[in-house]
Amino acid sequence: MKFLSQTFNIRTEKGPQFIDITDSVRNAAAKSGVSNGFAVVFSRHTTAAIRINENEPALLADMERMLEQIAPSRGEYEHNVFGHAFSNNGERPNGHSHCQHLLLGASEAVPIVDGSLIVGAWQRIFLVELDHGRDREVVVQLVGE
Amino acid sequence: MKFLSQTFNIRTEKGPQFIDITDSVRNAAAKSGVSNGFAVVFSRHTTAAIRINENEPALLADMERMLEQIAPSRGEYEHNVFGHAFSNNGERPNGHSHCQHLLLGASEAVPIVDGSLIVGAWQRIFLVELDHGRDREVVVQLVGE
Amino acid sequence: MKFLSQTFNIRTEKGPQFIDITDSVRNAAAKSGVSNGFAVVFSRHTTAAIRINENEPALLADMERMLEQIAPSRGEYEHNVFGHAFSNNGERPNGHSHCQHLLLGASEAVPIVDGSLIVGAWQRIFLVELDHGRDREVVVQLVGE
Repeated sequence: MKFLSQTFNIRTEKGPQFIDITDSVRNAAAKSGVSNGFAVVFSRHTTAAIRINENEPALLADMERMLEQIAPSRGEYEHNVFGHAFSNNGERPNGHSHCQHLLLGASEAVPIVDGSLIVGAWQRIFLVELDHGRDREVVVQLVGE
Repeated sequence: MKFLSQTFNIRTEKGPQFIDITDSVRNAAAKSGVSNGFAVVFSRHTTAAIRINENEPALLADMERMLEQIAPSRGEYEHNVFGHAFSNNGERPNGHSHCQHLLLGASEAVPIVDGSLIVGAWQRIFLVELDHGRDREVVVQLVGE
Repeated sequence: MKFLSQTFNIRTEKGPQFIDITDSVRNAAAKSGVSNGFAVVFSRHTTAAIRINENEPALLADMERMLEQIAPSRGEYEHNVFGHAFSNNGERPNGHSHCQHLLLGASEAVPIVDGSLIVGAWQRIFLVELDHGRDREVVVQLVGE
């Protein structure tokens, strides 16, 4: 039975931004020595999500546009008027970031089989920045035999 | 290798409602004696989801408003006309609840490192009631060493 | 400590399509001999998701309609114009499929307690085809004692 926990510190540049962390997760999996098990990939944030999709620049722009349509960055949010002030210490309004995050999620679990992370041909694991650029932490937890 | 399974029975009051279950998950993690591993948090329902976000009342209202825009409670759903009758035994129409649930999800996995659930500073784990108030079950499954 | 990895090859017929894979996951759980643990259900694709909801035909039509509203299949996507050509080898435009996938997700974790997959009364596990009909792979990874 093997366990490995690895934390990645990532500086994002803007929001939205899709940061491809597949290689980091793959390296952590290799380092863990796990042959069969899985990796839990977890964002420690409420405005930055973990998602798996294709890393194709035009597609990433499409997905950013969809998120903006669902929860527009210039929309009206109660969180921006009142709550934001005490909860986020005066940072830029981010009601839309939280709403978008609700639809994406904080974790994905990816199987490891015969020592390899078995993501499909087009699958890449992303940290999705939904707020503005800042320091982020992603925890990759590996378990298996 | 340690395992602990704990079921929480929760009475929700209305829908939508965000019920903060972080302390329950944290207590289950402590009780499990797991030092390194993770907690799988799972809702046993199709109209109540598990999500992680910030517990700020104005923000929760924003997120409820967004869900209502995406799948309005007074919208038209085939499930309400025909299917609902036999599948949910005459309860209130809940096509919108199922549609919203599809976008949120039934589970999240949260890492445990050095005996602590490593949620970020603003992260709280929620059971999100999307139907009307009723009895709900959340299963927290802990695994690790 | 027990591990079992099982891959299911599924031929989908059209998109969108909800394919109920609950029995396959349940069989894999039984075969694994795991008494307490969980199943990670993972789609190896970026346009086919894993979700849990009720298997009621009228409701599935409602959910398909909602997905079409959020990211219309005839909408405009940069991925369809330019990127699609090299990344998907000339298949049918699928920008909407990727966008919808982003909102659903690639994995769910389902607890196993006392030898049973403890899905709730109405919960069914689906592979959700968001592109056109094709061959798909779902990996079910079982871990526990």
